[in-house]
Parts: sequence; C-alpha cells; structure tokens
Amino acid sequence: MRMLSGSNILITGCSRGLGLEMVKQLAAKKTGKIFATCRAPENASELGKLAEDHENIYVTKLDVTNLNSFKDLNDNIKKFCGTDGLNILVNNAGVSPKSTRINFVTAEQMTETFFSNTVAPLMLTKSLIPLLGQGAQNCDKNSLVVNLSSILGSIAENTKQGGLYPYRASKTGLNSVTRSLSIDLASLKICAVSVHPGWVQTDMGGTNAPLTPQHSIEGVLGLIDGFEMAQNGGFYDNFGNVMPW
Amino acid sequence: MRMLSGSNILITGCSRGLGLEMVKQLAAKKTGKIFATCRAPENASELGKLAEDHENIYVTKLDVTNLNSFKDLNDNIKKFCGTDGLNILVNNAGVSPKSTRINFVTAEQMTETFFSNTVAPLMLTKSLIPLLGQGAQNCDKNSLVVNLSSILGSIAENTKQGGLYPYRASKTGLNSVTRSLSIDLASLKICAVSVHPGWVQTDMGGTNAPLTPQHSIEGVLGLIDGFEMAQNGGFYDNFGNVMPW
Repeated sequence: MRMLSGSNILITGCSRGLGLEMVKQLAAKKTGKIFATCRAPENASELGKLAEDHENIYVTKLDVTNLNSFKDLNDNIKKFCGTDGLNILVNNAGVSPKSTRINFVTAEQMTETFFSNTVAPLMLTKSLIPLLGQGAQNCDKNSLVVNLSSILGSIAENTKQGGLYPYRASKTGLNSVTRSLSIDLASLKICAVSVHPGWVQTDMGGTNAPLTPQHSIEGVLGLIDGFEMAQNGGFYDNFGNVMPW
Repeated sequence: MRMLSGSNILITGCSRGLGLEMVKQLAAKKTGKIFATCRAPENASELGKLAEDHENIYVTKLDVTNLNSFKDLNDNIKKFCGTDGLNILVNNAGVSPKSTRINFVTAEQMTETFFSNTVAPLMLTKSLIPLLGQGAQNCDKNSLVVNLSSILGSIAENTKQGGLYPYRASKTGLNSVTRSLSIDLASLKICAVSVHPGWVQTDMGGTNAPLTPQHSIEGVLGLIDGFEMAQNGGFYDNFGNVMPW
C-alpha cells in the first residue's frame, strides 16, 4: 500500500520553501488530512490560499521550538482526526545560521541551531507518538517520521568544505535521532527516515542551487510514498539514493 | 617523528577515569609539559599526587562549559610554554546522562549534553588555535586535536540498541566538528581526529566493561603517537581500527 494514500500528515515549517511546496503537491494527491504548521499563519498568504481551496488542509500555528505548545497541537489534531490518528510526520522546520567558519562560530549559534534542528524534531516526535501509533493501528501500514536532513549532515561527504559547524552538527545529530527513533518505535509500527532534499533554490539554498523546490519535493514525496521497511532508520536523498552518514 | 615526543599537551577532565589514566601513562613518557585540567583540583588527590611527583605536570582548574575562562587558560599555558605553544589538545571531558530512552528523554538533557560534549570542545579548540598553530610552527610535526568520541556516536553502529539520544547526538555532533576542524585548520598545520576509547571500566562505562582504563589508554596513546596525515579528520577506536560514522 502506498504511504501517502489516505494518510493524515503533519508537516512543520510550511510558510515557504520546501514545506510550502510539499503542501502544494500533496493538495493534488488523495491523502487524508494535511496539518501544515508555520510560526505566523497571518503572514503565510500562499499557504492560506491553499487551505482555502482544499478543505483537507489545516493551517496550524506552531513554533517548533516552543515545546510547551505541543499539547495544544495534539489536541488540535485529535479534534479533526478523531481516533484515526496521524500517519506521517514531516519534521521540515529548521534554521541555518549564516557565518559559521571556525573564526566566526559562536556557542550561541551552536546551541540555537541544535535546538531548532535536532531537539525540537525529537521532542515533537515524542509528543506525537500516541497519535502516530494510533494511525498505524487503524490501517495496514506503518506510520512514518520523516526528518528533513541535509547532505551537510553527512560527515563522510564533508571532505573539502569544512566549516558550517552549527548546521552540520545539528543535521548529523538529527540523523542520529532518526536512527534511534527507528529502533525505539518499531514495536509501535512507527518508522523513521532522514532525507536530504537536494540543493534547492529556496531562501536557505540560494539562487545558485541546481534543483527547483518542485523537482526536489517530487522526489521526496516519491520516496515517502514508496517507503519500505528496509529503509527504516536510513538516510536518503531526493532521488532515493542512500546517503553516507 | 612520534607525536608525543617532546610535545606540550593539554588534556581536559583529568580528575578520574580515562583522563587521569592518560596523565598517568604520559608521566612515564618523554613528553613536554602536560596541562591536566579538572573542575575541582582540590578534590583530585590522585592527579595532585602525579603532579607532585612530576614537575612537567601542571594541574589546571577548568570547567570546559565555562567558555569565559578560556582566556585565563590560554594565559596560563603561555606563561609556562613561552613561544613553544601547544602540540596536542585532548578534549576528554564530557558528560553522560543516565535515563535517555525515548519515554524519558528531555530537551534539557539534549541541550546540556550537547553543550558539554560538542560545543565546549569546539569552543576550547577555537580558543587554542593560536597556541596550537605556534606549536606546529616550532617543530617539524603538525599539532593535533584529539576528540574523545564514542562508538555511541556512530550512527552506523546503532543497529539494535536505539535510545541514548543526548549522548549519541552529542558524540555524533563532535565527530562532525572533528571533520570540519581537520579541514579548516589544515593550513595552520593543525590536525584533528575522533577516538572511541573502547568500552572501559570507569564511572561512565560501569563495571561490566571489558577494557581496563590502562588497556584503553595504551591504545589511545599509541594511536596519537603514531598519528599520520592520512588519519586527519577520521574516527578510530583504541586499537586503531577505522570506525564508521
């Protein structure tokens, strides 16, 4: 059974970039309910328009670093999904500090980036375990946690560029979290996978990037839709290739 | 030329465990000055005794999470080493939180462990770059940053156990830092390497561990002493075997 079909999906960081593109493409597919979170829905006009045009899309206010808000988020999802639960969580929200060569890196950059990109996805996933477990119980497929990682989180791929300490450590840390989640949650029928979306033309990726958000997310959604147990706890790029840790 | 011979060495976390064992074994070798740091020298009686018996051992008070104290540390090293600089930095100090299964992991554990095990070694290394660069200029060998990592920081090796989110993410993050340092500092003739010391009978490793501190540190010091450029930016165990990321 395809993963996206009929699935209730939560995606963080949907006001722009890859998150917005993901909602856009999912809107045209036969999924279940789509919870698209962003920090300031009042400023996310494109996302708001998508929700106006598709009644299964729910724009939900969420700052993933505000861990105290996760209970309200859970209540909100329960209100709309009842006992169906959640099938897919995409931890997409993240930050990327600008100047991070060794001469400029600060402890604050390190901790703030780690909190947004590693701790927040872990704690959000933890808070959603009951709903994700419920989702898996109510259908014949596992639930799935998708962590948006990066090639910059691959230590093996860092052969020449160096630097970028905060972002690299946070994404490497996220990959580590993915792997432990994939083991710890297996008995609940919840899987986890890390995805490098490619180098994409977004605010984060810049204009020199070779991939459009559309191209990248077509690949990422293809990977999610065709997800198999053998990929549990793994790290893949948008083409489905295995990434080295 | 062997790495340890005549080298001025700074080791953090020397009051007990692997740090203490390292100072013990180095005391019997022909190194230069050994700066052995710990949080509370007044309670580190065994380390104090070593310093009494060996005039090249300097017990130095340092809490690696107190980043503001690094300037004083630098001044202290300069006072004793003059323009010889520092040849080897061993980032050994670290913490390991106890209960870290998914049901018990907290954001505080994640951030505190990351700060001690990843951010502090990075910022300490950054502060010592001038002294490490000076060390390399004053002799015919590169300086070396040794980051005490762990097999638990290897994502590839985490195939069955899971959990341990704070410790795993912090050591994986430290490996990521090692790799970027090895690239960024190459032009200054400063190398960096991550080392898994093995599973050792210490307060951290517990009594079931197969290795004694003596056995582990003999291996680690052998690795350091025979360090070669081809190992720059790599991850090795106490036997010198390559560890997967």
